[in-house]
Amino acid sequence: MPVNLNPPDPRSLLPVPGVRLGIAQAGVRKSGRKDLLLIVLDAGARVAGVFTQNRFCAAPVVVARQHLSMNDPEQGVRALVINTGVANAGTGKEGLARARQTCAEVARLLGCTPTQVLPFSTGVIMEPLPVERIVAGLPACAAALQAEAWADAAEAIMTTDTVPKAASRQFRIGEATITVTGMAKGAGMIHPGMATMLGFMATDARISQPLIKAAVSHAAQHSFNCITVDGDTSTNDSFMLMATGKAAMSEITDAKSAEYLAFRDAVTAVATTLAQAIVRDGEGATKFITVRVEAGRSEDECRKVAYAIAHSPLIKTAFFASDPNLGRILAAIGYAGIADLEVDGIELYLDDVLVAQHGGRHPDYQEADGQRVMQQAEITVRVVLNRGRASAVVWTCDLSHDYVSINADYRS
Amino acid sequence: MPVNLNPPDPRSLLPVPGVRLGIAQAGVRKSGRKDLLLIVLDAGARVAGVFTQNRFCAAPVVVARQHLSMNDPEQGVRALVINTGVANAGTGKEGLARARQTCAEVARLLGCTPTQVLPFSTGVIMEPLPVERIVAGLPACAAALQAEAWADAAEAIMTTDTVPKAASRQFRIGEATITVTGMAKGAGMIHPGMATMLGFMATDARISQPLIKAAVSHAAQHSFNCITVDGDTSTNDSFMLMATGKAAMSEITDAKSAEYLAFRDAVTAVATTLAQAIVRDGEGATKFITVRVEAGRSEDECRKVAYAIAHSPLIKTAFFASDPNLGRILAAIGYAGIADLEVDGIELYLDDVLVAQHGGRHPDYQEADGQRVMQQAEITVRVVLNRGRASAVVWTCDLSHDYVSINADYRS
Repeated sequence: MPVNLNPPDPRSLLPVPGVRLGIAQAGVRKSGRKDLLLIVLDAGARVAGVFTQNRFCAAPVVVARQHLSMNDPEQGVRALVINTGVANAGTGKEGLARARQTCAEVARLLGCTPTQVLPFSTGVIMEPLPVERIVAGLPACAAALQAEAWADAAEAIMTTDTVPKAASRQFRIGEATITVTGMAKGAGMIHPGMATMLGFMATDARISQPLIKAAVSHAAQHSFNCITVDGDTSTNDSFMLMATGKAAMSEITDAKSAEYLAFRDAVTAVATTLAQAIVRDGEGATKFITVRVEAGRSEDECRKVAYAIAHSPLIKTAFFASDPNLGRILAAIGYAGIADLEVDGIELYLDDVLVAQHGGRHPDYQEADGQRVMQQAEITVRVVLNRGRASAVVWTCDLSHDYVSINADYRS
Repeated sequence: MPVNLNPPDPRSLLPVPGVRLGIAQAGVRKSGRKDLLLIVLDAGARVAGVFTQNRFCAAPVVVARQHLSMNDPEQGVRALVINTGVANAGTGKEGLARARQTCAEVARLLGCTPTQVLPFSTGVIMEPLPVERIVAGLPACAAALQAEAWADAAEAIMTTDTVPKAASRQFRIGEATITVTGMAKGAGMIHPGMATMLGFMATDARISQPLIKAAVSHAAQHSFNCITVDGDTSTNDSFMLMATGKAAMSEITDAKSAEYLAFRDAVTAVATTLAQAIVRDGEGATKFITVRVEAGRSEDECRKVAYAIAHSPLIKTAFFASDPNLGRILAAIGYAGIADLEVDGIELYLDDVLVAQHGGRHPDYQEADGQRVMQQAEITVRVVLNRGRASAVVWTCDLSHDYVSINADYRS
């Protein structure tokens, strides 16, 4: 029961010139489901990405990082290969060999070099990747390649997701209409540290390598990183941006140009839609919660407070129960780790209801007002620290019985 | 369904000379339950304690700290007053006034000064303390005072606890037999940051003020702090140690003496029993998990890894499901925040089963072995970092459906 989340209308997902997608049922872990996706890029595309900071990062993350760093502009990335079912994480040297073997097979099919292929996996950790099934499934992917397959592709990368997640947006640069289309998977949202998140976005814009890198970092920081703590991510998290350069425009090379800002905004907007969709589809989620912390001394301290609230199982179960047990939020602010925080100055709002001030309940606050907001499917918690000008936002969901059921049964 | 936890046999709880306890039903939040406890100490007792680091600490914590710091040895603490139902946290200036009013009333009844009284509260946050009911209940507490009431007292301080928690131990110093008796409450264990923990221990040992302070810190560090992160605690956490000095012994004044070490060990042992009882009674807990991290460079990094494992809802639900989904443990080690951790060197054991090594599953590991351990009610996760000589231990429990039910319904 995702919160206000419908599967994307396939007609709304715009193909990106220079990008083709092919899906197969490889039976990686279970048979009868789409679990293998091949994304093929025309020659000349630029690719950049951000990856998990987890020290136990998965074999495909190691290999994708390596291949990305080895590519020179003349011989860029030609394909991304994504499997679900098995994450190929915690699999040691053998896992690296299997990720490389997957790339080699894609390269053989497409006639490029293995380092032009980036591998991605998601699923159960610490089980060996059944690479022979992936290799056997790849020809079907290659045979199915087409530009219009984004909806199918978004479905193929799902794990515990209940709804595929994809979105498109267009903007103009001069005479050219530029398309940005993206898809993502991820649903384990109680603790962002464990939500394996994969995101793939493509555009036909022409953009320099330094600026595509800058744009992907900016977009991640304002979208996926608002649901995932830096350095506190799953073994497989990856977010990739591909630019094919097929649009009739000059290359964007100036970080201060209007063209770059328009590009960056469009990419960030699609990434934000995808990131919020992940929260809306949080495992067992029944509520979509925005935590906004304002007037802090630094963005970092605002994020600390926002995450203390967003991580608290006690607060999340109170949202599930529509119980305005708001003292739990004050307690979380108090233990967020801001050593010199003066609680007297803090204001706590639930949507537009002022709940607490001067270290205690606001005299005008009525439980009925809190109750009214708590019953909504979308709720904003707003904390005003009153000690500076920085702010931060984090999106999260509630913690329900279904979360426990889903995660207790994930492997069965 | 607490894990291997029975209520203490009242006969095993030894009275402590110089300490009397009185319980009443004050109807603080609900009627018909013991919710008010008065502990009275004979003149000359020494008291020390550790308190929550939460910036939103409760009014009684502020007042208890203040009164403790104001006491000189000649005019020490004479009483502790504890109520359940309402935590008097997030209650601003009015909350402080009500905590002080409670102390004043106790002082009036006992004929001491209000600063010789320490107040404690636990229960719902951000609701006003019904001080008039507490004041009305105090004479009944005073009339009921007796030395043998530890079992009743342990029951009176319960909130979501399903079982009272108390323990005694005796040791000898020369000809004297010294008694240590303690009780604790606390059960919200999924995130130690939110488990309001109250612990009260008393002994008839004679000990200097500096050494009782040292002993209470040591005991907390090796017991309650192994279930609670420093600086990341609830609004009301408090752990108090009272020494009445009634035993026939010379005062302990030397931190290196055998007498002090015997005292410290006895206090720590009782505190550990109480801390583990809190985990065993974790809300909805069905398993008792010991996380031991060894061979790290510092105790701090070992604790970080242990807490990353002990906090992960994904790992805790896997324990609940008896599912050896051990990759989730590797992932938690990876995101624990040890920047230079080399995963190749790490060994992961489940009880005595070697699960992972060299960044992946151990070749001899069989799922059946993991399954066998996971079905036990008590499980040890052991992580060997192989990069130093420090170690740390954390106790936790699993995450079940009942956790969600209990916390969704706590206020109803």
